[in-house]
Parts: sequence; structure tokens; C-alpha cells
Amino acid sequence: MAHHTTAEQTAPLSVGPDVDTPRRLAVSAVAGSDPAGPLGDLDGFRQWFEQCHGRATMAVRQVSLDDLAGWRTDQDTGDITHDSGRFFTVGGLEVHRSGAPVSTWSQPIINQPEVGVLGILVKEFDGVAHLLMQGKVEPGNALGLQLSPTVQATRSNYTRVHGGSAVPYLDIFRDTARHRVLADVRQSEQGAWFRQKRNRNMVVEVTEEVRELPGFYWLTLGQVHRLLAVEDLINMDARTVLACLPFAGPALREAIVPPHGEFHAALLASCDADSGGLHSMAEVLSWVTDIRTHTEVATRELPLAALPDWHRVDGTISHVSGQFFDVIGVEVRTRTREVPGWSQPMIAAKGTGLVAFLVARVHGVLHALVHARAEPGYLDVVELAPTVQCTPDNYRHLPAAARPTFVDEVLSARPEQIRYRTLLSEEGGRFYRSRNTYAVVEVERDSRHERQDFRWMPVHQLADLLRHSHYVNVQARTLVACLHSLTIRTTR
Amino acid sequence: MAHHTTAEQTAPLSVGPDVDTPRRLAVSAVAGSDPAGPLGDLDGFRQWFEQCHGRATMAVRQVSLDDLAGWRTDQDTGDITHDSGRFFTVGGLEVHRSGAPVSTWSQPIINQPEVGVLGILVKEFDGVAHLLMQGKVEPGNALGLQLSPTVQATRSNYTRVHGGSAVPYLDIFRDTARHRVLADVRQSEQGAWFRQKRNRNMVVEVTEEVRELPGFYWLTLGQVHRLLAVEDLINMDARTVLACLPFAGPALREAIVPPHGEFHAALLASCDADSGGLHSMAEVLSWVTDIRTHTEVATRELPLAALPDWHRVDGTISHVSGQFFDVIGVEVRTRTREVPGWSQPMIAAKGTGLVAFLVARVHGVLHALVHARAEPGYLDVVELAPTVQCTPDNYRHLPAAARPTFVDEVLSARPEQIRYRTLLSEEGGRFYRSRNTYAVVEVERDSRHERQDFRWMPVHQLADLLRHSHYVNVQARTLVACLHSLTIRTTR
Repeated sequence: MAHHTTAEQTAPLSVGPDVDTPRRLAVSAVAGSDPAGPLGDLDGFRQWFEQCHGRATMAVRQVSLDDLAGWRTDQDTGDITHDSGRFFTVGGLEVHRSGAPVSTWSQPIINQPEVGVLGILVKEFDGVAHLLMQGKVEPGNALGLQLSPTVQATRSNYTRVHGGSAVPYLDIFRDTARHRVLADVRQSEQGAWFRQKRNRNMVVEVTEEVRELPGFYWLTLGQVHRLLAVEDLINMDARTVLACLPFAGPALREAIVPPHGEFHAALLASCDADSGGLHSMAEVLSWVTDIRTHTEVATRELPLAALPDWHRVDGTISHVSGQFFDVIGVEVRTRTREVPGWSQPMIAAKGTGLVAFLVARVHGVLHALVHARAEPGYLDVVELAPTVQCTPDNYRHLPAAARPTFVDEVLSARPEQIRYRTLLSEEGGRFYRSRNTYAVVEVERDSRHERQDFRWMPVHQLADLLRHSHYVNVQARTLVACLHSLTIRTTR
Repeated sequence: MAHHTTAEQTAPLSVGPDVDTPRRLAVSAVAGSDPAGPLGDLDGFRQWFEQCHGRATMAVRQVSLDDLAGWRTDQDTGDITHDSGRFFTVGGLEVHRSGAPVSTWSQPIINQPEVGVLGILVKEFDGVAHLLMQGKVEPGNALGLQLSPTVQATRSNYTRVHGGSAVPYLDIFRDTARHRVLADVRQSEQGAWFRQKRNRNMVVEVTEEVRELPGFYWLTLGQVHRLLAVEDLINMDARTVLACLPFAGPALREAIVPPHGEFHAALLASCDADSGGLHSMAEVLSWVTDIRTHTEVATRELPLAALPDWHRVDGTISHVSGQFFDVIGVEVRTRTREVPGWSQPMIAAKGTGLVAFLVARVHGVLHALVHARAEPGYLDVVELAPTVQCTPDNYRHLPAAARPTFVDEVLSARPEQIRYRTLLSEEGGRFYRSRNTYAVVEVERDSRHERQDFRWMPVHQLADLLRHSHYVNVQARTLVACLHSLTIRTTR
């Protein structure tokens, strides 16, 4: 046996959790957080954003699914596929949930099995970590330009073995060996609209020189957190990657002193694993195991044309009730993409959704009321979701008992209970002007919140689970990023 | 809003990792580990085991699949199902793996979507935690009686809402609220033979009185660890649950002093997260994410009768090469079960398998060479597997390049390199006399081990991943339990 001692043999072992990264992220979260403080001036950003807006014209027109250039509807099944076989398909799904109020239904669903990459590039300038954000227009965006991660790439982009990539900065995420990986985890997306879709959420830090290309802008985490309060600005892909940042630990409490009152102190404690929680991680994991074992969700692919209660009329697929969502066609014209234009199907949700965490202080540590939620597209039965995730309009005429749990508690919140509320978009590449009001509402913890499918959890436990796939759903990830953002914005 | 302050509001928060459980497990691991020391006498156990053996007669006879009472073969598909629709079915699977040496194949596979529970009950006697083990015979067992967990129950057993259970001790695992849950996680089983099979691995500690029923025996962890060296004694279900115990932390190094030499010291360090590792957990998780993103495994259900190269002749399904495994029928007669007898299909593997970790000391910390392995039945593409997991006979006549990676390094190990080697069975309820030689082989770490699909990991990192589903495969879990067992048995 040959004994080639490798170079790493003499390198020291990596010991314990990384405390340096959370410390540097805390520094970045403070930097630019105060409009009057260092890096607090966002005028330069606003100018850049306006310039991007001016350049990034995209004309989007709804068209009939019958006239969708490059896409075909299968004569037998009604499924909608691209002529190339690439991108995604729209098919049908039949869902069975034993014991649920609605135990069987059918619906259109997007099949997109490829894992893409959503990546934020990080680099220190003058000792402060900055995130390279991209100004990006997607056809579904209500207001046009949004801030996106450095990279949003499909699998065929980033697994390409030969040659450079047309996607800027992608090579850094394709070969991370020379860099520092701060986060790298596949996370699910909307399980109500996607079948088992996952994207790889990455945050990679470089020390080498990086060119700031047009359309990209370096922001501190503190600046990004301020912008999360702006309506419809930070896109969904950026929010989910931000949620996966190792933004936790005692460093945050040391960097942000003194706290601005009790809520703020409880939030900072909530980001610090040393604060503990109402339930131990072993108890939380056992609860997830129990719910996943007992919840039965069976799905079966159906031809899109065979879905009961869904009809394709005038080139749009809709539910007979007019509720839920439509599948529509859009035609896109643009000057900024590789191609001058394209057409595609999109999902257009009905009404504005409501996505909210109830939060409560427990022994001085803020806890969010997490819901173990089943959606048909999840790979592993249930994921941890916001307390409330629904479209209230769908329930407006129903008796209180039929309304989603805790929705009234959110809708009736007094202004001083509302710690965060902003209208944000879902992913504009697949969802047409689908927006949710994201909210964080503070309540007193009480016995009504003790339910088998809900648990109070501090932010640091969600952060711990976010290192792994299939635990925290995409809506809850947005709220985790929003909770992070409150660590510097809260003044009460 | 009503403000009912709940009782828990005033209870303190659960802070940090549980250090008490690992400490008490360390005490239990020492207890009975020395044959001459306290609790070291296993004569009582051996008498009990012989008595069980005498009572637990089971006559198993191979029969034709054509004559399998209670089971039917579908005329069109050839799939084998129980008349009741319960238990499991044997169907076919077509597998595509881009870039693999064998990129497409078909095979029979067991479909058993229900999640059962494998549970070990723990209780302290005189301050020492004891595990309640069961003497159990399964039709596939080569030597008859084995030691199993306290409970092996199907889903229909343990989700039963009304009335008591016919399975002893099951109620403790069905309602854990009054007890202490030490482990509770769904884990996969053989991905080569099962389609997306998972069982719930539980360890629950009670303080209340528990009757020791006939067929059950309390053992310390130290005693169980000694018995893991005995051929074919501890069954697979017990081994996988043992692997999920939170057996880690500095407590072990404090309980077992002084170490018996450098290997033993490195093993104890390996169980302690404070020792660190060659790669940080962030790096390990990023590696898993990368492999899972780049590995493409596509599967498709096929009718069992339509599988190319598999033929049903004389009531047995075999591969034309005579390799891999057969699907056979067995008829069982017994005196000890609820029913006097039954028939069922089983998988009978060809040859004895070899399952081994290469281990190496790195800066005084033992690391195992873990393989990111794709199997068609895994829910999430790949799981972490032993360095070697194969049936060497299948490769005996092939050139070295076609042999599984590192198999020769295991087969040519000198006696002093072999730290553990015992013949153990796979689950005797589905697999007929399927046995593997499980081995831990110490090597010098060298550059040949640096491969994209292999990583050196200390035991504590595997323990950390074992808190979650879909990371560590069933064969690697047996080896983790075996590594645990070496913490008291190593004398070099």
C-alpha cells in the first residue's frame, strides 16, 4: 500500500461551528442600516436602479395558450410543453389527503425537475461584506425591475462542462473550491404550483478581484435589509437565498447595542442559539417526524385535459369557481435578454395572498408560530410554513370555522402589533403578478396557539433547519429574511 | 383577543444541546463492557436467549411463487400483491443514471410505502440506562433467533386510534408526551431493494414502571456493544436504531479513561464534536448538495413481467446472469406469532456482501471514508454509504478497473488493520438469509482516497446528520453502531 501523505494531512482540523461568518454578517447588517450613518446613503443605489429601470424595458402581453409560439398542447393529454422539450411543462395532478377538510382535488401543476442555482456573491470592501445584487426584469413582475441574486441559472447553464458561461459570475458558483461557501442547500419552491421543484440556494464569498458589471450593484446586508421594507423590490429568489445566510449567533447581539426596546431585544435573542427555545431541537425534530409519518398525501399525474372542474376556454385554463389561479399565456418583448423575445405559459394567482407569522415573546426570546403544512408538490409530505398562508378572498363568504387557522388574528391586528408588512412578489419567471402581503404580527402567546400542527420556534431554530433541504417552505423563508431585516429597523 | 397564559409560559426555555443524555449513554456504554466488571456477566442473558430460542421455533420452507397462499400474481403485469392489498408488493423498476458505468438497468423492487416504527425503550435501573431488547425470529434469519428493538410495528399498528395494541410496549412510542424522546427520525432502508422505504427510528426513555414481558431483556449499552461482535445476533432493525442514539460528546472521553492506545483515543475523539473534522459541516453539506444536484437518477415503474433479463421460472424470479438476487416464495410455520403461519415473497441475495468503512486517524481524530452513493430507491438521489458496499463475487472475474472502488484495499487488509469484522444479517422479514461481512479497516490516509464522491468524516458528523432523514444509508448506520461498540471493546 502506497502512503502518499497529502498536503491536507498537516492542515489543522476544522473545529466547531463557524463563528467568524456570523460575526462578519452582523458587521454587514449594521453597515448602512442607519440612513444617517456610514454607508447609510442609498442615493447612489437609487440612481443605479433608475438607470437599470430605464434600460430594462420588457413588454409583456397576455396571449391565448392556443397561440403560444414555441409551445405545443398535446392533443391527447392537453399537457403544455416547449417544442424543444426543455424549460418546464404544465400537466395535471390529482391529490388525496386523508383526514383533510378537502380530501381530494385535481389541479394544473408545473413540472420542472431540473435544479437551478440561485447564488449571491459576497465580497468584503474595507472590512465590510457586500452582496452583489442584480437588477432583473421578469415577465410576471408587477412593477418591472426587481433586485435579484447575483445569479439565477438553470441546470443546463451551470453544469456545462466546457467553455465559459453566458451567465455573468456563474463560474464562481460552478467551481467553489477556491472560494468560501457560506450557504449551499437545495430548497423547495411553491408546493401548490410546482411538483417537487428545488433550487440550489448558494452564498459564496470571494477575495479575488470581481468586476462590477452593468446591471449589478454591491450592497451591505444592512442596506438590503432596509430595502426589504420597500414594496415589491427584493425578488423571491433573493429572499430565499438571504434566508439561508448563517445570520445567527451571539455576534449579532454584540454588534447591535443597545437594543431598541423589548421587542428588539427579543428578536436579537431569537437569532442566537444560546438563547434556547420553548422546545429543544430534539423535540422539534420529533414533532416533524411525527407529522410526516401521520400525514398521508398521495398524488397521481393526470392529463391536464382530464382535470375535473378545470376548463380551457379562450386559451386560458381556469377553475369553474373562478378561484385559485389561471394558467395563461404571455408574449414577451425585451431589449435586455440574450433573445429579443419569447412566449411562455404562466400561473396567474387570483387575488392577493396573505403570508404571516404570528410572533410572541417567550421568556424574552421571540418565537414564531410555525405551521407544519402539506402541499402536493413537496418531496417529503410537509414543510414548515408561516402561521397563515392563504388568499383571504377565497374564504370571505365562508363561516368562521371554515376559514384558515389564525387568519382573523392577523387581519384584526392593531397597528402596534404589526412589526412588518410589505407587499412582495412571487417568482416573476413563472408566476404572473402573484403577490402576497408578508406580515409579522406580534401577539401574546396563549392556549389557542397550542395545536398539534403548530409550534412556537425561535429564529435560530429555523436557521438551523435551513442548512438542510425540505424543512422550511419558500414563504416562511421570505419571512425569515424579513425577521432578519427587523434586527436593524425596529425602533420600538 | 383572549390572553390565556398557558402553564408552559412560566417554564424555563430549553437551552442548547442536550448534554445529559450523551453523558448517561456514556455511563451505560461503560456498564457491562468489561466481562469482569459490574454488570459484565452475560450468563443470565445467555440463559434467557437459549430459552427464547427453544420456544421460538419457526419452520421456513421455500415454495414456488405460483403456490404462495394469500398472494396473487397480476395476470397482466406480473406484479405480486397480497390478497388484502396490505403489506407490500413486488413490482418492477427501470433505472437511468447518466454518466454511470451501467447507465440503464431494470430490476424487481419492493414497494412498501407505509412508515413503520422501530423503537427501543430505555429505562434507568440503579442510575444506569438499560435498553429493552426483544428476542425475535424472522423467516429470513439464517440462525433463527436475533436481538431486535423493543418494537417493530407497521403503520397500521401504531396509528390505530382506538383501543390498545396487540404489540407490546407500542403505546409508549405512539404517545411520547409523558416520556423522554432520545431519537425520533425516519430513515431509509436498502435503496437497491426497496422503493422509497422508510421506517421511523425511535428511542424513548421512561421513568414509570415497565413490566419485563417474556421474550424481552434489559441490557446496558455496554452489553449490547459486546454482543455486536457476535455473528448474526443483533438484527438490522436494532442496529439502525442504535446508530441514531445521541452517542457523542465529551462525556464519552470522560467516562472511558484512559484510552487503550492511539486508535482508541482517536475513536473517542471522533465521537466528540469538539474534536472537529477534516471538513467543516458547512463543507460537508455543500458537498452533499453538489453531488445531489449533479447526479441524475431517473426511475420508472415497470410491470414485473416486462423486465428485460429477469425471468420467472419454476416460481422463482432470477436475473439471466444468475447474479444479484432472486425473488422467492417462502411458507412459514410458527408457534410464537399471532398467526400460526403465513406465506410471503422474499428477496434472496446472491453471495455474501462486503460492507466496510476505511478509517484513518487524522490529527488524532478517527475519520471514516464516506461514499456518496446513488441507489434507485432513495427518495433524494444519494445517501452517505460505507466506503465499500458490494458483493465481491459479482466482480471476481472482472479486471481491476471494473471492480468497486477500494474493495481490494479492504480484502487485502492485514489482520492488525481490521478493527471490526462480523457477519451480520439484513432484515429477515423481507430478505432471505441475506448477510454481509461488516468491517472497519484502518488505513493510512493517502491521495488515492481523494475522490469527488468520497469524503473523510469523523463519527460525530455522521451522528449530526443522523438526526435528519435521507443522509446516512442503512449499511452505514450499522457501521456507525459498530464504531460506537468499539469505544469499549478496543484493547490496542
